[in-house]
Amino acid sequence: MTTVTPAAPTQLLAQTGLEARQAIRSGRWSGHTSGTAPHFVQGNVVILPEALANDFLRFCQRNPKPCPLLAVSEPGDPRLPRLGADLDIRTDVPRYRVWRKGELVDEVTDIGALWRNDLVTFVIGCSFSFEQPLIDAGIPLRHIAQGKNVAMYRTNIQTAPAGPFHGPMVVSMRPMTPANAIRAVQVTARVPAVHGAPVHLGDPALIGIADLATPDFGDAVDILPGEMPVYWACGVTPQAVVMEAKPDFCITHAPGAMLVTDLLDSELAF
Amino acid sequence: MTTVTPAAPTQLLAQTGLEARQAIRSGRWSGHTSGTAPHFVQGNVVILPEALANDFLRFCQRNPKPCPLLAVSEPGDPRLPRLGADLDIRTDVPRYRVWRKGELVDEVTDIGALWRNDLVTFVIGCSFSFEQPLIDAGIPLRHIAQGKNVAMYRTNIQTAPAGPFHGPMVVSMRPMTPANAIRAVQVTARVPAVHGAPVHLGDPALIGIADLATPDFGDAVDILPGEMPVYWACGVTPQAVVMEAKPDFCITHAPGAMLVTDLLDSELAF
Repeated sequence: MTTVTPAAPTQLLAQTGLEARQAIRSGRWSGHTSGTAPHFVQGNVVILPEALANDFLRFCQRNPKPCPLLAVSEPGDPRLPRLGADLDIRTDVPRYRVWRKGELVDEVTDIGALWRNDLVTFVIGCSFSFEQPLIDAGIPLRHIAQGKNVAMYRTNIQTAPAGPFHGPMVVSMRPMTPANAIRAVQVTARVPAVHGAPVHLGDPALIGIADLATPDFGDAVDILPGEMPVYWACGVTPQAVVMEAKPDFCITHAPGAMLVTDLLDSELAF
Repeated sequence: MTTVTPAAPTQLLAQTGLEARQAIRSGRWSGHTSGTAPHFVQGNVVILPEALANDFLRFCQRNPKPCPLLAVSEPGDPRLPRLGADLDIRTDVPRYRVWRKGELVDEVTDIGALWRNDLVTFVIGCSFSFEQPLIDAGIPLRHIAQGKNVAMYRTNIQTAPAGPFHGPMVVSMRPMTPANAIRAVQVTARVPAVHGAPVHLGDPALIGIADLATPDFGDAVDILPGEMPVYWACGVTPQAVVMEAKPDFCITHAPGAMLVTDLLDSELAF
């Protein structure tokens, strides 16, 4: 008799945000959320003590393209009812990173033991929601075709500071034909809750990028003849800005292991 | 006693489309309409016999970016009530050009004597309506700053043919910074009735333009360091296509002497 050992699943199969959160909350999934609950909005998570939270809220308000806020919790309240009636931020993210004074100190699957009455949760729009409308519009995305992470670069575009939060904007770059670049401006302008229209087109030197072949984050992708690079404000910006500010205490999602919400991507488009 | 002879007016001063048409209809104005009745929509005019009109209507339907139709009359009916209750196309354009077999044979200020029961009037959106939202959005337009006509180029982008109507798309080009180019895509995408979003950005060779310094129509303008050329489908396209088809009989407006309508530019935006 032969025993077939099933391969470990590589993706959380869920049809809705609620289904995904239930699997995560029960401990059945602690991996990435790429491809989970297609068309449901996923979010980056930043949890900060209230004293810093007010500065960070003003930072997001002043920099909506890199920091599109989907929801902010009440201080000490782990719920985010606008994103899901059952949602509990202490259990509903597959993996969390815990930071003290800007240093990564732990990676956990539940933050119940770390919760405090002064913590404020920020959920920030993520590129999964942002790329789906491009794909739906028939615009090929090179990094997806090449099975890579998107290429990201630090720029010389300064964010508007607030309290201890400041620093350069990080952009993601997607090469495309000029006709697709025009269409991509139209498509992404309709989703301001996930970075909106591009911040730049064409010459990388004009925004302080020295070499497209050496991204600061993610993977370099090919740019074919007749294509132009198109740059969007990137959700790595607030993460980089928070780490730079070295808060005494901070919790974030682990890379790729996002909060899955009840919002539909299409609800974010006007 | 000194007699001061007033200078001939260089602009038809009118606050509304109706006021402009009344001045034109009464013979008080036969010049260009640039700056007349600001924020009221002006249109290019093409008048064709019914036999060809059906082909031309299909041509416009298939090529909405270069040929954005504002209105089409009933055959033989000189009225266009959607553009003005009083509007009579036989008298309300300052100057008309009369064409036979593709040759310009006359320029007149009234076409009452030429009117036929089979003529169909096409009114096509014009760049005046199209540039006003860009200016309102704070995007500087070089050709206006330099007091020039916009630069226009024949491209290798083919229009979709219909009957005898076919030929390359003509584009207008406006240089701007990448940030303004992105904003201009958003602004002009909202006015599909006047050419809509650009058809190309950046490298002119990709659409068959050999040299930006030598436009096929209009005037060359400077492109400054850090700017990119942005290209829109141009209303010269249908004019070039009609002339190329050499219809037995055709009437158009004279360059710059447009039909002024009761529509507001803002009504064309969604």
